[in-house]
Amino acid sequence: MLHIFLLFSLIFTSTNVLAQDFCVANTASGIVTPSGYPCIMEAKVTSEDFAFSGLGVPGNTSNIISAAVTPAFVGQYPAVNGLGLSAARLDLAPGGVIPMHTHPGANELLYVVHGHITCGFISSANKVYLKTLKRGDVMVFPQGLLHFQINAAGKRPSLAIVTFSSPNPGLQILDFALFANDLPSPLLEKSTFLDDAQVKKLKGVLGGTG
Amino acid sequence: MLHIFLLFSLIFTSTNVLAQDFCVANTASGIVTPSGYPCIMEAKVTSEDFAFSGLGVPGNTSNIISAAVTPAFVGQYPAVNGLGLSAARLDLAPGGVIPMHTHPGANELLYVVHGHITCGFISSANKVYLKTLKRGDVMVFPQGLLHFQINAAGKRPSLAIVTFSSPNPGLQILDFALFANDLPSPLLEKSTFLDDAQVKKLKGVLGGTG
Amino acid sequence: MLHIFLLFSLIFTSTNVLAQDFCVANTASGIVTPSGYPCIMEAKVTSEDFAFSGLGVPGNTSNIISAAVTPAFVGQYPAVNGLGLSAARLDLAPGGVIPMHTHPGANELLYVVHGHITCGFISSANKVYLKTLKRGDVMVFPQGLLHFQINAAGKRPSLAIVTFSSPNPGLQILDFALFANDLPSPLLEKSTFLDDAQVKKLKGVLGGTG
Amino acid sequence: MLHIFLLFSLIFTSTNVLAQDFCVANTASGIVTPSGYPCIMEAKVTSEDFAFSGLGVPGNTSNIISAAVTPAFVGQYPAVNGLGLSAARLDLAPGGVIPMHTHPGANELLYVVHGHITCGFISSANKVYLKTLKRGDVMVFPQGLLHFQINAAGKRPSLAIVTFSSPNPGLQILDFALFANDLPSPLLEKSTFLDDAQVKKLKGVLGGTG
Amino acid sequence: MLHIFLLFSLIFTSTNVLAQDFCVANTASGIVTPSGYPCIMEAKVTSEDFAFSGLGVPGNTSNIISAAVTPAFVGQYPAVNGLGLSAARLDLAPGGVIPMHTHPGANELLYVVHGHITCGFISSANKVYLKTLKRGDVMVFPQGLLHFQINAAGKRPSLAIVTFSSPNPGLQILDFALFANDLPSPLLEKSTFLDDAQVKKLKGVLGGTG
Amino acid sequence: MLHIFLLFSLIFTSTNVLAQDFCVANTASGIVTPSGYPCIMEAKVTSEDFAFSGLGVPGNTSNIISAAVTPAFVGQYPAVNGLGLSAARLDLAPGGVIPMHTHPGANELLYVVHGHITCGFISSANKVYLKTLKRGDVMVFPQGLLHFQINAAGKRPSLAIVTFSSPNPGLQILDFALFANDLPSPLLEKSTFLDDAQVKKLKGVLGGTG
Repeated sequence: MLHIFLLFSLIFTSTNVLAQDFCVANTASGIVTPSGYPCIMEAKVTSEDFAFSGLGVPGNTSNIISAAVTPAFVGQYPAVNGLGLSAARLDLAPGGVIPMHTHPGANELLYVVHGHITCGFISSANKVYLKTLKRGDVMVFPQGLLHFQINAAGKRPSLAIVTFSSPNPGLQILDFALFANDLPSPLLEKSTFLDDAQVKKLKGVLGGTG
Repeated sequence: MLHIFLLFSLIFTSTNVLAQDFCVANTASGIVTPSGYPCIMEAKVTSEDFAFSGLGVPGNTSNIISAAVTPAFVGQYPAVNGLGLSAARLDLAPGGVIPMHTHPGANELLYVVHGHITCGFISSANKVYLKTLKRGDVMVFPQGLLHFQINAAGKRPSLAIVTFSSPNPGLQILDFALFANDLPSPLLEKSTFLDDAQVKKLKGVLGGTG
Repeated sequence: MLHIFLLFSLIFTSTNVLAQDFCVANTASGIVTPSGYPCIMEAKVTSEDFAFSGLGVPGNTSNIISAAVTPAFVGQYPAVNGLGLSAARLDLAPGGVIPMHTHPGANELLYVVHGHITCGFISSANKVYLKTLKRGDVMVFPQGLLHFQINAAGKRPSLAIVTFSSPNPGLQILDFALFANDLPSPLLEKSTFLDDAQVKKLKGVLGGTG
Repeated sequence: MLHIFLLFSLIFTSTNVLAQDFCVANTASGIVTPSGYPCIMEAKVTSEDFAFSGLGVPGNTSNIISAAVTPAFVGQYPAVNGLGLSAARLDLAPGGVIPMHTHPGANELLYVVHGHITCGFISSANKVYLKTLKRGDVMVFPQGLLHFQINAAGKRPSLAIVTFSSPNPGLQILDFALFANDLPSPLLEKSTFLDDAQVKKLKGVLGGTG
Repeated sequence: MLHIFLLFSLIFTSTNVLAQDFCVANTASGIVTPSGYPCIMEAKVTSEDFAFSGLGVPGNTSNIISAAVTPAFVGQYPAVNGLGLSAARLDLAPGGVIPMHTHPGANELLYVVHGHITCGFISSANKVYLKTLKRGDVMVFPQGLLHFQINAAGKRPSLAIVTFSSPNPGLQILDFALFANDLPSPLLEKSTFLDDAQVKKLKGVLGGTG
Repeated sequence: MLHIFLLFSLIFTSTNVLAQDFCVANTASGIVTPSGYPCIMEAKVTSEDFAFSGLGVPGNTSNIISAAVTPAFVGQYPAVNGLGLSAARLDLAPGGVIPMHTHPGANELLYVVHGHITCGFISSANKVYLKTLKRGDVMVFPQGLLHFQINAAGKRPSLAIVTFSSPNPGLQILDFALFANDLPSPLLEKSTFLDDAQVKKLKGVLGGTG
C-alpha cells in the first residue's frame, strides 16, 4: 500500500509548492491586491482560522442609534479571503436603527435571528422595497443600493446576521459620508439640495468641517 | 422642478429598456443560462420577491439522520439570481447529522443560531479541519471539499443558517452519490476500495442498483 | 487555393452555430439575464450597431440643475452588451451640477472634453477626494461610492465624457432616492437624521409621498 | 430508510426547478447570451452529451497549408457551455503550418500527441517566444497574441490537441482577416504598410475585394 | 523610421512599468494571493518558461492502483499562472484505476491519447454519467463532482491528457480524504454510514488514525 | 453623539486592517499578480492619485504615422488598478494612422473629441466593420480583434479618447509583431504567406532581424 502513498507523493511533492483550496489572509504582510491578501502558508493554517466567535458577542447598543454592527469581514476574519463571502452581526435595541447606507462592493443577505426588523432598499429606478421581517425570514439587498434596518419589535431587541458576496463589502453610511468629514458645505449643499441650516446642524452633531 | 424630472426621464426613458440593479429569476421561463435565469420584468417585482420566509419553518427531522436541510437556493428563492448568494437552514435534532457532502459550486459560511455543532472539512492536502461551534460562532467551508455537521448539543436540538457564494451551490451527498443510483458495483468498488459487502449493504438501504 | 477555404469552411461551418466575438444586445427579445441580453444574430449585425452618435448631441441643460446626463448604456447602445463598458455625456451649463449619486454596478472614468469641473467622491472610510479638473484631465470614481460633479468654468459650459466598467452601471441619485418616492417620512427621518421640515420641503419639490 | 429519501426529496423537489452542475448548450434555441447558450433540461442530458468523438478523426490536410484544424468549441461540443474550456485537434502533414492567428477570447494550451512542432508567439512587448516541441510536450499561448505552429517532423505528420480557457475562444487567422474580405486596399495598405503589389497578390489568392 | 520607434517608446517607456500579457509564477517568492502567484519580471521570462516537458514522461504505474497522475499545475508549470488553464497526464496500466475523486477548483476535459478508458461522474442530482472512451475521444467532468477513470484496454495500457479550467484545480481523492488522516472514526462513521469494520480496514491500509 | 463615533470606531478599527474601496497600484513594489499590483496604503492615497493630467497633453505626431498614442494604463495611472478600466489619447495629424493592432486584454470604446476618424475592425468570422466617425461619436472594438483608426478630417487633426475594460489592455501592433523582432524570416513567411521581398523590406524599415 506504500504505492498509493507513492502516487500521493508524486502528485503533491513533485515541487515544494502545495496546491491550496483556500487562502487564509496574511493581514500582517503589508500587502493587499485587488484579489485580496496573500495567503498564510497552508502548513500554518489550523481549524481555529476557519472558525470565528466574534459574532457571538452582542454589540454595545448604548448609543444614539441604539444599534451596533459587528463585522466579520476579511480584516477581522481572515479565512474569508478569496472566498467571496463575509458576515456581520446587527444588534438592534428597542428603537434601534442601522442608518441609511450602502455596501459598494457586495450584495447582502439578512437573516433575522430573533425579533422583528423593518428593512428597506431603494433601486436605481427610485422604487422603494420595504418589508417587516420576523424571526427566520431572510431578505436580499442588491449591491450599492441605499438601504436601512429598523427594529420593529417594540420594547424587545432584535438580532440579525447578514452575509455578503465579498470578503470586503465596504460600508458607506450616508450621514457620515455627508456630514462627518471636510466636504465643503457649499459643494455639499449644491450637490444635495439640503438647506444650509440642516447641513450645519448635522455637521455639528457628526463633527464635520468645511 | 419639472426640469429635474425631465432629466430623470431623459436618463431612464430614452428607450423602453430600463436599467436593472437586480435580476429576480423567472423560473417559469423554461430558460436557464450559465449566468442564471432570465429576469422578471422590473415593473412586476415587489418587496415580496426580495423577502423569503421559508427558512423560518423548522425542517422535519423525524428521519434516519435526525436532521433536515431547507434550501433557499435560486430555485426556491428567485431573488438571489445573479447575486452570488444563497442560503439554507440546517435543523439538527439530538443525534442529528448532515452527512458527508460537497457543494461543487460555492463556498459556504455557517452560523450557529442555537445549540452546539461539530463541523469538519477535509482539504485537497488531505488534512482535517475540525471544530465544535457554539451559538453565535461561524465557520467557512471552501468550495468542493468534503464536509459534515453533527449535533453536539446532547439532548437538545441545534439550528444553523448557512450561506453560499452562489445562487446555485449544488449539493453532492457522498452516500447518495455512491449508493443511491445505478453505478455498477464493480466500478464503484474498484474506484473506492470499499468491500462488496459494504457496497451491497448500503445500496440495499439507499436503493442503489447495478 | 480552394483548399484554404476548405479549411476555413471546416472550422466555421461544421455546424450552423457561428463563433461570436461580441454580443450586440437584442433588447427587443423580452429576455435579460444576469450576464446581459441575448445577442442579435451575427449575420444581422452591421457597422451601424458598433457606432453610436447619441453622445454627439448636447443635452438640454435648461433645468434646475443646469446640467444633463445622456447615457450610452446597453439600453441605448446595444453593442456594449457583454463588453464590460458603457459611456455617458455630461453637459454642465454655468452653475451646473450633477447631484450626489452612485453607480451601484460599475467603476467610472471621467474625461473633461472642455471646461473645468470640480469632482468629488467619498470613500467607505469617510474620506473626501476632491479635485478640480481642466480640459483633458481624467479622474476615476470607484464603484458604489457617492460622488458629484460641479461646473467650475464660471460663465462657460463644461463637457465631460464618462465611461463605466459595465454595460449597465446603474445610477442612484441621492435626492431622488430619498425624496422622490413613497418611502414613509418617519422611516426616512429615522434612518437619515434629517429634520422633518427638510424632508417635507424636498419631498414637496421632488414629488415624494408618504 | 424512506426518511433519507424524504430529506432528499425535500431538498430537490420543493420546487420543480432542479439545481444544475452543468449547462449543456441548447444550440437550437436561437438564443445566445454573453455567458453562453441556454441549457438543455437536465432530464434530457445523457452521457453521450459529455463525450465527444469528433477529435478522433484526422482532419483533411490535402490543402495548401497541409494542415487542418478540427474544433470542439461550444458550437460543435455543446457540453462545454459555461465550463470555461474547449478543445481542437491540429493535424499537420509534412510541411504543414497553422498560419499566424489569434484567439481573441481564450488562452491556449497545446499538447503534442506525436511528431515535432515548432510553435511561436509574439507578446505585446514585441518579443518572440519560440520553441520546437516533441511528443508529450505542452506549451501555452496567452490570449489574443499572434501565434503559429509549423510541422517540424520532416516527412512525418504531427498531431496536437489544444485546449482553451473558454468554450468559445474565437479564431482570427491573420491572412484571412487582411486579405479575404472587402477591406478597401487603401485602408489596408495605410494601416499595415504592406505594398500594394503584395496586397493585390494575396487578395487575389484569398478572394479579397476592395 | 526612427519615428515609429519613437511612438513605440512613447507607449511602453513612459514609465518603467511594462505591460504584461502573461504572469509566469514566481513560485519562490513566498507569496500567493487568491488570484495566483506574483509574476516573474517579463525581462527574465524565456521560451523555456512557456514550454513544459514533464507530461512526456510516463508515470510509474507499479503501484496498487496500477496508475499514475503527473500534474502540470501552477506548482509544476509556472507559466499557467493567471491563465485559467492547467494539465495533467494519466497513465493507466492494465487494470489501472484513477480512484474516485473531485477537483474542487476546476472543470476538467479528458483526451484519450491511446487505449480505452471507462470514465464516469456523478451529478448533484445523483445521476451517473458513464462512458467508455476510445483513442481520440474527449469527455468533460464538471467542477467539484465525484468522478473516476478505469483502464478498459484489457492487457494494454491507456494514456490520457486532462486539462483544467484553473491553474490550481485541486484534487481530493475520496479514499485519502476519508481514511488517510486523523478524522475520528466515530465522526467518520456517523457522517458516511460506513461500517466500523470497513473503516478500520481502510484506515489500516491507508495509514489513517483516530 | 460620541456614541455614533463609537459605532464608527467599532466597525473600522476593530483591527488595524482598513476596508478598501479601491487599490491604487504600488508600482514600485516589484510585485505584480494576475489581479494587478499591490495597493498603496489607503492612508497615503490622495485626490492627486485619482486624477491624471497626462491625457491633456497632445502627443508628438511628427513621425511616419503622423499619429501618437498616449496611454493612461495602470503603469502610467496607478489609480485604475483593479478597477477594470483604463484610457488612452489618440492624436491623429493630417494623414495620420493608428496602424492595425489588437488589445489582447480588453474591449475598447473610442470617443471622437474633434475631427473625423475612419475606424475599422475585423471579426473572427472575417467580416469588416467600418465606419467614419465624427465629433461626439463613439464606437466599440471587441477584445483581441484587429482594428485601426485613420484620420478622415482632411487637412485638420483629429483627437480621440479611448477607454478599455482592463487596467492593462495590452497592445500588439501588427507590423511591430511581424517585422520588428528576431522572428526568423522563413517561419514568418511560411506562417503569413508574405513574400520574402516584402518581409525583407519591412524588417529593414522596422529593425527586424532573423
